[in-house]
Amino acid sequence: MGSKYTIGLDFGTNSLRALLVDVRDGTEIVTTTYNYPRGESGVVLDRANPLLARQDPQDYIDGIEVVIHGVVEYARKEMNIDSSLIIGIGIDVTASTIIPLDELGEPLSFQPRFQGNIDTLAWLWKDHTANDEAEQITSLVSAIRPAYLRRVGGSYSSEWFWSKVLHCAHHAPEVFELAKTWVEACDWIPALLTGDTRPLSINRNICAAGHKGLYDETWGGWPDTEFLSRLDPGLPRIISTFQKRTRRIGEKAGVLCEEWAYRLGLKPGIAISIGSVDAHTGAIGAGIGPGILVKILGTSGVDMMVASDEMSLKSISGFAGIIPDSILPGCIGIEAGQSALGDIYQWFTDLVAPGGTSIHTIIQSESSLIQPGQSGLLSLDWHNGNRTILMDQRLSGLILGLNLKSTRAEIYRSLIEATAYANRIITEHFESAGLPIKRVIVGGGIALRSPMIMQIFSDILKRPLEIAFSSQTSALGASIAAAVAAGASQGGYDDFSKAQASMVHNPSTSYFPNLKNIGIYDELFLIYKKLHDSFGRRGSSINLFPVMKSLISLRERTRGG
Amino acid sequence: MGSKYTIGLDFGTNSLRALLVDVRDGTEIVTTTYNYPRGESGVVLDRANPLLARQDPQDYIDGIEVVIHGVVEYARKEMNIDSSLIIGIGIDVTASTIIPLDELGEPLSFQPRFQGNIDTLAWLWKDHTANDEAEQITSLVSAIRPAYLRRVGGSYSSEWFWSKVLHCAHHAPEVFELAKTWVEACDWIPALLTGDTRPLSINRNICAAGHKGLYDETWGGWPDTEFLSRLDPGLPRIISTFQKRTRRIGEKAGVLCEEWAYRLGLKPGIAISIGSVDAHTGAIGAGIGPGILVKILGTSGVDMMVASDEMSLKSISGFAGIIPDSILPGCIGIEAGQSALGDIYQWFTDLVAPGGTSIHTIIQSESSLIQPGQSGLLSLDWHNGNRTILMDQRLSGLILGLNLKSTRAEIYRSLIEATAYANRIITEHFESAGLPIKRVIVGGGIALRSPMIMQIFSDILKRPLEIAFSSQTSALGASIAAAVAAGASQGGYDDFSKAQASMVHNPSTSYFPNLKNIGIYDELFLIYKKLHDSFGRRGSSINLFPVMKSLISLRERTRGG
Repeated sequence: MGSKYTIGLDFGTNSLRALLVDVRDGTEIVTTTYNYPRGESGVVLDRANPLLARQDPQDYIDGIEVVIHGVVEYARKEMNIDSSLIIGIGIDVTASTIIPLDELGEPLSFQPRFQGNIDTLAWLWKDHTANDEAEQITSLVSAIRPAYLRRVGGSYSSEWFWSKVLHCAHHAPEVFELAKTWVEACDWIPALLTGDTRPLSINRNICAAGHKGLYDETWGGWPDTEFLSRLDPGLPRIISTFQKRTRRIGEKAGVLCEEWAYRLGLKPGIAISIGSVDAHTGAIGAGIGPGILVKILGTSGVDMMVASDEMSLKSISGFAGIIPDSILPGCIGIEAGQSALGDIYQWFTDLVAPGGTSIHTIIQSESSLIQPGQSGLLSLDWHNGNRTILMDQRLSGLILGLNLKSTRAEIYRSLIEATAYANRIITEHFESAGLPIKRVIVGGGIALRSPMIMQIFSDILKRPLEIAFSSQTSALGASIAAAVAAGASQGGYDDFSKAQASMVHNPSTSYFPNLKNIGIYDELFLIYKKLHDSFGRRGSSINLFPVMKSLISLRERTRGG
Repeated sequence: MGSKYTIGLDFGTNSLRALLVDVRDGTEIVTTTYNYPRGESGVVLDRANPLLARQDPQDYIDGIEVVIHGVVEYARKEMNIDSSLIIGIGIDVTASTIIPLDELGEPLSFQPRFQGNIDTLAWLWKDHTANDEAEQITSLVSAIRPAYLRRVGGSYSSEWFWSKVLHCAHHAPEVFELAKTWVEACDWIPALLTGDTRPLSINRNICAAGHKGLYDETWGGWPDTEFLSRLDPGLPRIISTFQKRTRRIGEKAGVLCEEWAYRLGLKPGIAISIGSVDAHTGAIGAGIGPGILVKILGTSGVDMMVASDEMSLKSISGFAGIIPDSILPGCIGIEAGQSALGDIYQWFTDLVAPGGTSIHTIIQSESSLIQPGQSGLLSLDWHNGNRTILMDQRLSGLILGLNLKSTRAEIYRSLIEATAYANRIITEHFESAGLPIKRVIVGGGIALRSPMIMQIFSDILKRPLEIAFSSQTSALGASIAAAVAAGASQGGYDDFSKAQASMVHNPSTSYFPNLKNIGIYDELFLIYKKLHDSFGRRGSSINLFPVMKSLISLRERTRGG
């Protein structure tokens, strides 16, 4: 049998990409990208409220046509591949990115009367307007449903489903009233392509439902009516529009409907996989499996492991979720992460050199010449809150150790180091939770584009870091899901382990820790932890008097040496 | 009798200026400026050591001729004033800015063999290479000469005379050995103009000696031999080159010698006043007197008051010195200050917009639109350590509350606010020490050039701020000292009170606190104090967990309002 192909559709924060993959061996044929035109790089902002981040679902619809036409045309013209050989489509989206829908499953924002109403748009994952509601949910969970804590790492996030829906109920009641249901974008897109977005027809995936939606089969699925009523009397109405059970990635959400097949130039009836969270398909595309920690480092950072047995876990606090069948079906998915990573580097670069990409390169190369400890600077990377292990959005970034000669390159490097210290805390947290780490595989834009940053991460983590072979692990993971959804009978696979074995290539690049940097980074990490605990832990009372002096001493020692 | 004139020579960090003043009524006839050409804007730096800051004394000599020729020419050509009507020269310099001299009183750096040796140059006030030595001196003072603590606010600074000399003994012993003596630049310049710089001929002024040199008549003048020997066996040799007693500003250091009179186009024999510290002559030129707090706000900040009676003081800790006859002869001079002020604003502007003065203006005007609390940012202004009240150079700057939307204007404003909070701590410290403040007069470049910054200071201090009438209070103060040194018989004055009454004009501009900002700034000030005490006070253990959350709440409140 000749080659078959699948398409991974990866809906990111700023753009949508499609990847066409040869199912037999994972060869990536072509990628096309659609930069969302609406808002600022696809993110609709509100000048009056820096916490707000929305997205227009029209961008998703417009983008699907553009990127799939792109791969189909390229395949036909350049590779002589006919579109009839494409056997499935997999979908991943950022999460929780949620959309209020009408009774037909259309986004409310498509109704002319809601033109310009930002609350009817998709609420993007990094929207933090629901900080208060997240605290309200965490309090109620602690008070009356402590079991739920186990699934959310002890604290419910403002980035997640119920915080956002509740915030809408509080602050945009007219939108809340008119929304028949709310849906994760990663569930809405598959429904859209199957031609049926009616609320009860929409399949909800366990990855988003488990990590963000308080869904767990041990308590019967979705959170109960009493709990939801206590948050807001209107919430139980929302849950009544949900299917009772969730589905797993690699299952079929349905098949491509006639209308979309026509619009896309594909065969109707091909498999549409259940969707997933972009980081989770990234883990699959990077080659996640037991003992393998996958980090997806981009604008934000996600760290993922899978365990075969939940009982082996010693501790669950601080993780953003421990969810059976999430990430990789058949395993327990465990997720942690950093709310901002590349976003912080980009923020600083824009601050000191607005609009200048060449300046960015200059700052990077200046930064690479700075030795650990030499700047005397130490930062906290909480510009977008802290996801793991503090799970607190109401934290903020900090730069310490500044003097009148501190340079932009020094500050830039200290921000990189801060994200690496935070990543070390996460990595050590996996191990102390009872998950031994045999390998670390890193994917995402930063892994690909910045050897300097990867070297700093390796030095600070004191571990070899392998760079995922694919430059687009999320889209690759989605195309693997599509191959599983299509099944072996169609030229795909029956399960993920076979699909990964064929379609994920071994990493070809690795970074190893530089031994001469380990000692000084260990010292700096201890100071980072002091700041981390002082500002981040309730009731801490750490003596910070030595902090600035230690950094100055380190600076003097490293400059002298 | 017609008008007589004096010249104030003001040696700043980056330039020398001369001011020609009409002695009768203080009219400022003309100012000329010489930008030191050596180093970076007159400051010789060492890339390998950010603490180092030196100055080439040749710049002083070259500059004197340029600026005095400038005022003499202008006076003759434009105002028809003959140089024979100039009756004296007053001198102020930054301090401790100290020069190692040979046995003839020439700077060691003038010897060809020391070409390029930065340790033979003048050690500029803001040179912090002697941090370790400052700690060593503070320890020894505490151990065996506790009385000394009273004059130095409890801690000896790395910016001061003995720290620097001791650092030279430790790190550049060949320079230390060949230096016959060390002198404050504000004592060397008057000696130079009188034509006799031989060490024992040099008059030392009480302002520098008292505040920076551990001189006090209650213990017999200079620090004793045993004390100095314990620091370094070589130090007593230095003290043996000093006159036993110090002199006061307004006394005559001598008269202008024939050679310099010829070089400058002035009459030989006119009065050369004893020199002083630039901030102190600034206080005189701003109109200091009992009950008046004078702030000189420039690259750094100095706060000064005078008391008629030392016994009225309740506390002396934290002040950079409480010295009889300093600042204004006949009173007790009390000095406090901020190690960096405008330097911090400039550092940040250079960081985000190198070289762009128009960008500086844009950032300032963007900053002026931000409401208190609205950015969620809070900074510590310790980029150059903390002078009052912590007296600790081994502190550093901090910016807290950053998020991914924090703008350069917000950060700039938070740095301004930080310097104003620090200034409020100083102001309240004067009052709690038993010095009631009736008026606050502000001079210096920032007072003149930035209404926005002065308004923020007024809001945060909750006091009216009067802007000194003269735009160059230090040079004016030096010219007043020259008028006193010349004496009434020559057309000058017999004492400072008469001279000030005639030559210092009343402030014409005032800033009043904006009542709507006071409450929110009070809240922010409390948070500033938490950070100040956490990082700045030994043994503190303050719970910082609420800090970031409070700032976010304030931000939300002010944006909502």
